[in-house]
Amino acid sequence: MIAYLNSNFIEEEKAVLSVKYIAIQRGYAAFDYLRIKNNYPLFLEDYLDRFFNSAGFMHLHPVHSREEVKKVVLELIRKNNLPDSGIRMILTGGYSPDHYEPVSGNLIILQEKLQLPSHETFSAGVKVITHEYQRDLPHVKSINYFMGIWLQPKLKEQNAADVLYHRQGIVSELPRANILMVTKDGTIVTPYENILSGITRMKLLQLAAKNFIAEERKVTISELKNAAEVFMTSTTKRILPINKLDDTVIGNGKVGPVTTLLNDLFIAMEDDISINGNIPE
Amino acid sequence: MIAYLNSNFIEEEKAVLSVKYIAIQRGYAAFDYLRIKNNYPLFLEDYLDRFFNSAGFMHLHPVHSREEVKKVVLELIRKNNLPDSGIRMILTGGYSPDHYEPVSGNLIILQEKLQLPSHETFSAGVKVITHEYQRDLPHVKSINYFMGIWLQPKLKEQNAADVLYHRQGIVSELPRANILMVTKDGTIVTPYENILSGITRMKLLQLAAKNFIAEERKVTISELKNAAEVFMTSTTKRILPINKLDDTVIGNGKVGPVTTLLNDLFIAMEDDISINGNIPE
Repeated sequence: MIAYLNSNFIEEEKAVLSVKYIAIQRGYAAFDYLRIKNNYPLFLEDYLDRFFNSAGFMHLHPVHSREEVKKVVLELIRKNNLPDSGIRMILTGGYSPDHYEPVSGNLIILQEKLQLPSHETFSAGVKVITHEYQRDLPHVKSINYFMGIWLQPKLKEQNAADVLYHRQGIVSELPRANILMVTKDGTIVTPYENILSGITRMKLLQLAAKNFIAEERKVTISELKNAAEVFMTSTTKRILPINKLDDTVIGNGKVGPVTTLLNDLFIAMEDDISINGNIPE
Repeated sequence: MIAYLNSNFIEEEKAVLSVKYIAIQRGYAAFDYLRIKNNYPLFLEDYLDRFFNSAGFMHLHPVHSREEVKKVVLELIRKNNLPDSGIRMILTGGYSPDHYEPVSGNLIILQEKLQLPSHETFSAGVKVITHEYQRDLPHVKSINYFMGIWLQPKLKEQNAADVLYHRQGIVSELPRANILMVTKDGTIVTPYENILSGITRMKLLQLAAKNFIAEERKVTISELKNAAEVFMTSTTKRILPINKLDDTVIGNGKVGPVTTLLNDLFIAMEDDISINGNIPE
């Protein structure tokens, strides 16, 4: 696999950084992840927007322009020819003389195999547990996954696939995904505060608005537990049904009709973009 | 400079890690930092205790035993012969196949020059500003300095040397230091909750207890602003007087007698340990 580091396309095995860089010393770097389908980078402009927004908000100093990063991504897709895959973009704070103040950053772009949840996983749904926590600067996507990773053993213990953060019962997001529900009257609802604005979430809301009422507002744990359908969205999972929240079975425990319809519509949209080259509105 | 990476002493320039490691991908690693004086590692056992406690609490899997890490530190001191310096210890989550679940970690140990605050800086004191924030898992020392680094431009804007975290007016700590005050009746007071238990703080409290009343309890911003003396403690700063908190001058704006005495006592203790080889009680 070919990777891009700073100014060079290199074999991935050769992509190394000094342990003195601030990403290793202080865990400080902007991050983003996009999906490649049929060798087409889905929603590339949106991901670039977010990546550069995160970098700017984190006071990082990208050496590459947005246009240059875009070219690197497109070139990497050509070089690796991995039609269905994912691309990670990381902009670090570089090598900081005092290990503290970010300077000109290292740009790391890696392509990798990506397996979306199987049809079986989609049909079965997953269990999610709740945990009281609020991410720092939630609208920024960084490499700071401290809490998500720290909670991994707890998830295993409780046989859960993921964790949903909340503060005093008001939910926000999962460490790497957004949360949405379908209420019993068929409205699609998702939190809008204290979250990372997921690209899949945004595209899904646009799709949903054509067929349903879609609302962004405060959502509580108990509303979710009483919803007809609950699911998460993310770049690496697209739409993944949640059939159990803590110990509460959602709806009848099976994947609901709205979730299934939205998933079908989303896949159709992806195909339309990536195969037919139709740029979405 | 010689560094230690995984199982080898190597030239620092050769200490590199793949960009695929979880420290870079997810900012997940345990960290600690100790000071070398006269080629003697001050309070080494305390730092090793804390480093292994952090690693364990973070579910990291050290390949090296505590005794092995200790030997590496002592060997590094001999090899580099940098009598007054600092040593960084980092234990990463290794290369995680799913970029998420920590596996056997990389051990990184780096020695570096360390300049403690000069006599002039000590005498002048520094300005600190307050910021509402609580570190995640505060008793763990990790590479997660997201907020501390993110706030750097704000500090510069306000001509401040550092930032003090609080929640609703109850203070906890600075990103890399503890906070202590001397009240107008001469009691030494420091917060005890939601902080990293600093080694310098602990040693200072033990020293202080011989001459003063020392209390660990809740401390508010307004108490600090009304204190006779305020200072921070940290491994890299020892004791550093704070003469201004936000826009409030502390005491008469000059370094106080208790701070000066404690600093003298601390230096005497360091000398006693590092020159005379007297192990502290």
